[in-house]
Amino acid sequence: MPLPFQHLLSTKQLQRADTEEILRVASSMENVLTKGGSELLKGKILASLFYEPSTRTRLSFETAMQRLGGNIITAEGIQFSSMYKGETLEDTMRMISQYADIVAMRHPEQGSAEIAARACGVPFINAGDGPGQHPTQALLDLFTIQKECGKIDDLCIAMVGDLRYGRTVHSLSYLLGLYKNIRLILVSPTELTMPEKVTSFLREKSIPFVETKDLAAGLRADVMYVTRVQQERFADRNEYERLKLQYILTGEMVRGRNVLVMHPLPRVGEIAPDVDLLPNAAYFRQAGNGVPIRMALLAMLLGKA
Amino acid sequence: MPLPFQHLLSTKQLQRADTEEILRVASSMENVLTKGGSELLKGKILASLFYEPSTRTRLSFETAMQRLGGNIITAEGIQFSSMYKGETLEDTMRMISQYADIVAMRHPEQGSAEIAARACGVPFINAGDGPGQHPTQALLDLFTIQKECGKIDDLCIAMVGDLRYGRTVHSLSYLLGLYKNIRLILVSPTELTMPEKVTSFLREKSIPFVETKDLAAGLRADVMYVTRVQQERFADRNEYERLKLQYILTGEMVRGRNVLVMHPLPRVGEIAPDVDLLPNAAYFRQAGNGVPIRMALLAMLLGKA
Amino acid sequence: MPLPFQHLLSTKQLQRADTEEILRVASSMENVLTKGGSELLKGKILASLFYEPSTRTRLSFETAMQRLGGNIITAEGIQFSSMYKGETLEDTMRMISQYADIVAMRHPEQGSAEIAARACGVPFINAGDGPGQHPTQALLDLFTIQKECGKIDDLCIAMVGDLRYGRTVHSLSYLLGLYKNIRLILVSPTELTMPEKVTSFLREKSIPFVETKDLAAGLRADVMYVTRVQQERFADRNEYERLKLQYILTGEMVRGRNVLVMHPLPRVGEIAPDVDLLPNAAYFRQAGNGVPIRMALLAMLLGKA
Repeated sequence: MPLPFQHLLSTKQLQRADTEEILRVASSMENVLTKGGSELLKGKILASLFYEPSTRTRLSFETAMQRLGGNIITAEGIQFSSMYKGETLEDTMRMISQYADIVAMRHPEQGSAEIAARACGVPFINAGDGPGQHPTQALLDLFTIQKECGKIDDLCIAMVGDLRYGRTVHSLSYLLGLYKNIRLILVSPTELTMPEKVTSFLREKSIPFVETKDLAAGLRADVMYVTRVQQERFADRNEYERLKLQYILTGEMVRGRNVLVMHPLPRVGEIAPDVDLLPNAAYFRQAGNGVPIRMALLAMLLGKA
Repeated sequence: MPLPFQHLLSTKQLQRADTEEILRVASSMENVLTKGGSELLKGKILASLFYEPSTRTRLSFETAMQRLGGNIITAEGIQFSSMYKGETLEDTMRMISQYADIVAMRHPEQGSAEIAARACGVPFINAGDGPGQHPTQALLDLFTIQKECGKIDDLCIAMVGDLRYGRTVHSLSYLLGLYKNIRLILVSPTELTMPEKVTSFLREKSIPFVETKDLAAGLRADVMYVTRVQQERFADRNEYERLKLQYILTGEMVRGRNVLVMHPLPRVGEIAPDVDLLPNAAYFRQAGNGVPIRMALLAMLLGKA
Repeated sequence: MPLPFQHLLSTKQLQRADTEEILRVASSMENVLTKGGSELLKGKILASLFYEPSTRTRLSFETAMQRLGGNIITAEGIQFSSMYKGETLEDTMRMISQYADIVAMRHPEQGSAEIAARACGVPFINAGDGPGQHPTQALLDLFTIQKECGKIDDLCIAMVGDLRYGRTVHSLSYLLGLYKNIRLILVSPTELTMPEKVTSFLREKSIPFVETKDLAAGLRADVMYVTRVQQERFADRNEYERLKLQYILTGEMVRGRNVLVMHPLPRVGEIAPDVDLLPNAAYFRQAGNGVPIRMALLAMLLGKA
């Protein structure tokens, strides 16, 4: 079943039929990986354009394309000559559409993905536009939950840390709105609670949620999705230091529980290294899930799956 | 018919038989692209060395190589470690010749391409050496004219903008010297007229040309090749602002005329966006023509076409 | 015969049986190159991670991987986003192990290769860790000696220049400790003599060596391995200038002798260009030997040779 759109810009354009189909194709891509890859996208070229660097996301896209036999043209960082010379993003996209069969773009400005996609003559994937959307991350998070828990419906999911500015928890919330009987535990400092636009979405979808400052509350969930508490968000340094200690997940807290621990990575201390050794720690498997998800999206948007 | 040289450094080394053969092979490469690429250069490696960044040219070369089944090693920008460590360009080329089967190099210094090619043990393509030559751009311009107008002989071509410093209009002028019954209209501010070295070449080849400041004069040509008027060339800012407005091509000026509008891109305002919608606007198709031209050159210099 | 380790971190982990097997496979890889490459590593991905830029080494690894039909994901320089975001090297490796089948890493800090390899779930090759080890360079040096001299045992080898800080002469010394009847001539200014850790290793292995300031003494060796005398090592600029002139190898010195001249490159004046024309000059062939050596290591560590 082809996706009902040419460009993937936001999780908001996805219906449940879409996410189920993407996750189904991603599962079949795991079999492709086990067999050492395929030639499905042989002769196709992905333009991987990172106006701001993101090694993880870029290498994940490039791995996915090559596992399917496709090729890559890539540019990263401020050395983009077209930026120096004052070219518009639209003109860059019109140009790149003449070269590549599909484009993945990361850009620091919110809304840039929509502008770029409109000018792009080939399928376009938003690989993150500033504080805006990062739909492939949300889809790999969803894929991880389904693989690890065997389902997405009927789960209690705790989101922990910087819920105000954390792009990944917003996108995931929108996707969870497609599923049934979801309950959320939102764990954050007062300064970093989930923004109104997300909580009003949750109310509209009748998703029950509690807001708390207590990390322990999150440990009772099926899934705990941890994000970084960002120092730069706090005026008071001491306040940050005090809070930081309250939001460090340790092996002692997790051991013996059924909670699955996820994190979009990179982490910078909010999950202690001793958690890594526990079966609960799903975050490195989660990073790996970016490959089959992106293989699925590349193949589907190119009409090959 | 193989090209009578191993390295492509300048349009000046090309005879009409060469350009015709290159354009003929480029046409056949368009068929290869339609069929989704080929394996003609399978197992070959292109070293794409950009001492100054040029995303457009680099990605175009890398697309071309991969469309023919070849591989890429690439380096761009000041992070070149060999530059940090004081290695000569000749030594870098002797080294890279041990790795790659063919080299494309962009370098900020005029004359660097010739120095590099002399030390290079494999075919070498100049992808722009500062204010010097950029022969693959001139060839794709010529290819665009032939495709869009059905011929190159007997055309009237207007060149507009910065004719003094614009590398592309110089290289194109030299190539047009190989064709019959060409007439040129040279449209520029007084400060940016075509340099003596080019106008004396035109006289030598008996190519009639007129020089004018009037953009409208260019609209009567078969082809209008627009370039950017560069602010940094003017001592008087007000003079620049006044002139800039006189050199903005608009949809209103072009609509209903037969003139083909070309531009090497990036543009920064000298062609208004409403021109894009007219069939006259050839500049994005022109950018796309960089791929089959570079496929042709890679294949020919590697003795495979 | 598979190598008895998963990760290549240092020349110190190599036994003579290992170096002989690596050199044997590298020889067979030269035949693969003559035939235009192979598909031995088709479907495999090399992650080429250069935390500090080293164009030569990076492009050599990427050439090697592609000559065997494998693919590349690559990142170079400070634009590494994971470094900006404070991720540990271990976490980066755990992530990258989810994408690639093998990793080659260059890093500015000594010891980083060992830390990275411990967290890496796939084979890992140290491509240089600051002043530490650079084992693939030492192996290509050894391969060059064997190819050019027909043997390694029973040779007299002069090492010239900065023996104190030159990583390559240290690593090569350790490898030569595996061979029989080696004699060394160590030519350097007093400020840049071979460090105690290396000379005590030589004594332990009963490798006779002489230390001298006289470049001419080195010309009597079978092999002269020249390195750069680094200006920044001298407090007295005049002293540096005086010494520099004493350590410039010229064609006149070498002509008519049997000494093989090697250099890890880049050179910055210590070998005059007129040496290049003599058959003694092995340094560009040496650079080329990096490809078959790295092909051998990639294939062996991936269990394919």
